[in-house]
Order: sequence, then structure tokens, then C-alpha cells
Amino acid sequence: MIGAIKKYNERADAVNSLVCVNLDPEFTLLPERFRAEKFPQFSFNKAIIEATHEFVSAYKLNLAFYEARGSSGIAELKMTMDYLQEQHSAILTIADAKRGDIANTSVQYAIAIFKEFGFDAVTLNPYLGKDALQPFLDYKDKGCIIVARTSNPGAREFQDLIVLSVPLWQVVAEKVAKEWNENGNCMLVAGATYPEELGKIRAIVGDMPLLIPGIGAQGGNVQAAVQAGFNSQKKGLIIAVGRSILFAANPAEAARALRDEINAYRR
Amino acid sequence: MIGAIKKYNERADAVNSLVCVNLDPEFTLLPERFRAEKFPQFSFNKAIIEATHEFVSAYKLNLAFYEARGSSGIAELKMTMDYLQEQHSAILTIADAKRGDIANTSVQYAIAIFKEFGFDAVTLNPYLGKDALQPFLDYKDKGCIIVARTSNPGAREFQDLIVLSVPLWQVVAEKVAKEWNENGNCMLVAGATYPEELGKIRAIVGDMPLLIPGIGAQGGNVQAAVQAGFNSQKKGLIIAVGRSILFAANPAEAARALRDEINAYRR
Repeated sequence: MIGAIKKYNERADAVNSLVCVNLDPEFTLLPERFRAEKFPQFSFNKAIIEATHEFVSAYKLNLAFYEARGSSGIAELKMTMDYLQEQHSAILTIADAKRGDIANTSVQYAIAIFKEFGFDAVTLNPYLGKDALQPFLDYKDKGCIIVARTSNPGAREFQDLIVLSVPLWQVVAEKVAKEWNENGNCMLVAGATYPEELGKIRAIVGDMPLLIPGIGAQGGNVQAAVQAGFNSQKKGLIIAVGRSILFAANPAEAARALRDEINAYRR
Repeated sequence: MIGAIKKYNERADAVNSLVCVNLDPEFTLLPERFRAEKFPQFSFNKAIIEATHEFVSAYKLNLAFYEARGSSGIAELKMTMDYLQEQHSAILTIADAKRGDIANTSVQYAIAIFKEFGFDAVTLNPYLGKDALQPFLDYKDKGCIIVARTSNPGAREFQDLIVLSVPLWQVVAEKVAKEWNENGNCMLVAGATYPEELGKIRAIVGDMPLLIPGIGAQGGNVQAAVQAGFNSQKKGLIIAVGRSILFAANPAEAARALRDEINAYRR
């Protein structure tokens, strides 16, 4: 199996795109024609995938939007993953799950996300420390994307607290880069809404890919985020966008436009 | 609807027990007779519930053990919740989910946990700050159990970092007690494996109930934990035990013995 980071980088080169579309099909926001379908979330996802796949290098599925519909939603999550595996297997799949629990529990979450659903990568919460996430880190071919600095206003509350003379999010980034990345499968989440912090995270982690939420509905600026976040090859970013593509009048055009805007800043 | 904390306290008084059984039916550990059933996790849970209910005040279901079986597992989680609601509605139900994501996502997780599955309470991760958890906090009748100090070895890695001259877990406990508890529906997770920290958390939060994992398979000492954690009425603890009751030769006896041991320290 090809490792998750290699898979992403190869796809990003092949289609010249750093765009990740968030397949977060919030049920009440789906157009009526999808809500009337037997599998509304899957049908919507399939339409978005067919509209956007040539412009994207990753799809990110936030599990909350499926869990909200119970076992039906989880079944449609699985249908979406099977569809991606069959039709577009070169595109990285990310479970946006922000999981973090003791190791005995993480073993089960890793089975769910990597084996049952078949994701290439997962987002993880660092608060419980390395031993809690080790069951994920042990999957060498899977990507572990650890939350350092999030995109929401409350990110300031704990992540910015000063420890050892630096903010907590910086301690997290340093730990992940220097101690947790033994298998070379770690990445970090760094919100687009705080480009200065994003730039500091880039300086800490070298060329490691960063998952960047916060563009679009959350108000992050594309130019500021990508210029602060690029690695030495002007790559290494997974720019995740949801609502502003999913619910655009023309999702294909919205995905293409974002790809092109990002690429303009790469030159 | 009766609030979650009131529900727990009334049940704890009615059956004179501070025991919470973790319904974490790890599939590979289930006895063969359950694995052969059509609904193995639900059948196992039902047997455990029938054996233990008279000795317990709460059941805690860790979602990881159900997600590992995909939509089938989630369906059995729902069956278990429906069974508890129909047969034992006085017992508090806790979703051990450790969720923590931006507000737009938390809205969906809260729908899943409180509405779709029907839990009374949920465990939450504080790393993203208050605004991220506000959608949960806004359910006034539901319990929000925020992770302060976990029971695993890696709890030291970030939770013990010194900020504002105190450890991060203590900042979390103070924030929750003083700023997040506007609806009086907050509780905290404090691991039994660190009784000294547990005692300090008790001093910070007053009589607020604390969820205490780490007894049993994780090695926490019952006496040390409960004596450090009791509130002013020698109550206010949700002592959560999983494997050492679930897989005991006699789960009923194991639950009763734990209840009695805890009560001995209350006198």
C-alpha cells in the first residue's frame, strides 16, 4: 500500500491542485431533489464528487454529519467511501473525526476509520498525549493529522496558553514533528483563519503536509493562508473547503476557481 | 425533562450506588454465544444490563466500540439506548465520545448523541475552547462532561504543562467551573489513576459530579480515588468500570461488590 502522504503528494502533482473538498452533507441543507432520494447523503456526495474530482487531491468527510443520521448516515458514509475507492482511488480520503481517547479505545476508532470505512487519513486531538494516539500512529501507511491550531475563535482559549515560554499549539507542533513522527505519517491541522500561527507551524515542521480548514464559510483568506503555509516546494498544503463548494451554484466551477487561485499564489 | 445531573443524583440516592458500568462490547472479547447472535453487541449489552442494573446509577457507552462495526454497530448502539429508555429510564446514560470540533460540526454531533441516540450526557474534549462546545452546552437538560485530567500515562504530556503557574488540566477545570457552567449542566472527567490531581479538581469545582475512569483494568485504586474525589455529601462521583465487570465470571456480583466497596469508604 502506498503511504497516505505520498498518495496526496502524487495526486497533487498529477492534477496540479491542493484543493480538498469537505463532503459534509448536512441533511437540512441538501437540495430537495437529494432529500427525496433513498440515500440522500450518498446521492449528494456522488454528485459533488462527479462535479469536482478532476480539480481535487483529497476529500474530507466529517463523521459528525453522518452520525447525526444514525446507522443510516453511517451506511451512506460507507457507500461514499466505497464509491471513492472504486471510481477515484488516487484521491486521498480523510476522516475528519478529531478523535482522542485512551489507547484501548483508540484501537477501536482506528479499526472503524482505517479498516471498516477504509480512510487513508484521520484528524486527531492531541490533548490525551502520544500513548493515546499510538494505535493510529502504528498504521504506517495511514495519515495521522493532529490538531495543532484550529480555525475557530475559541482556539485562543487553551491552544494559545503560554507553556515553556511558547503557546501550547506550538508545543503540540514540535512534539508531533520531533517525537510522534517515527513512521513519517504525521501531519498537522492549522487553521487558515490565523495565518501568522500557520507560518510558525510551517517553520517548525519542515515540509510536512498541513491540513488547512477555515477557508470559505469561516472567513479565512486564501492568499494569506497559502503564502504563510507553503512548504519549500510551494506545496504541502491540503486546503479544505466545504460549504462554499458544496452549496455553490456550480460546484465544479467553484472547485476549479479555488484550485486556480491557490496555484496563482504558487508562482 | 429532568436535567442530567439531577437524574444521576436521584438515581444514586435511590439505589445507593455511585457505580457506572461501561457498555463497551469489544467484539473479539465477547463470549462465543453472543458473537453467534444476530445482534451480538446488543445481546451482550442486554445481558450485562439485566445482570447489573440494580447496582448501577449510570451506563456509559464508548462510541468507538460500536463504530468499529460500522452501521451495524451503530444500529446496535441505538438498540441498546432504546432498551435502556424502555426498561431502565431512571439510569443515566453517557455517550463516551470525547468529541471536540468547531461549532458547526458540534451542532451535528449534539444532534447525533442527544437526539438520534438519546443520551443524557456526553464526554467532551476542551482543546478547541468554549465556542466549539457551546452547541452541547446549550442543551440545558443534557450533561456535558469535559475532559480535564485523563487516566492514561500520556495525560502528562500536555495536560500537565504549566500555564499561568498551574497545570493545563487545572486551567480547564477552573474555566469549566467558572465560565462554561452557565446552565449548571457541566461535569468533568478526572482519572482515578491520579488521585492527587483528582482531589485538586474536587477543590476547584465544588459539588459538581465527576466522571472517574481508570478503575479496574487501568489499575486505579478505588479507595484512593473515591476518598480524593467525594464532594461535601460524600457523593458526586460517577465511578466508571468496564472490562472488570463486563468480563467478570459474574458481572452482577462484580457490580454489587464495587458498589459496596465504594459505599464502605463513604461512611
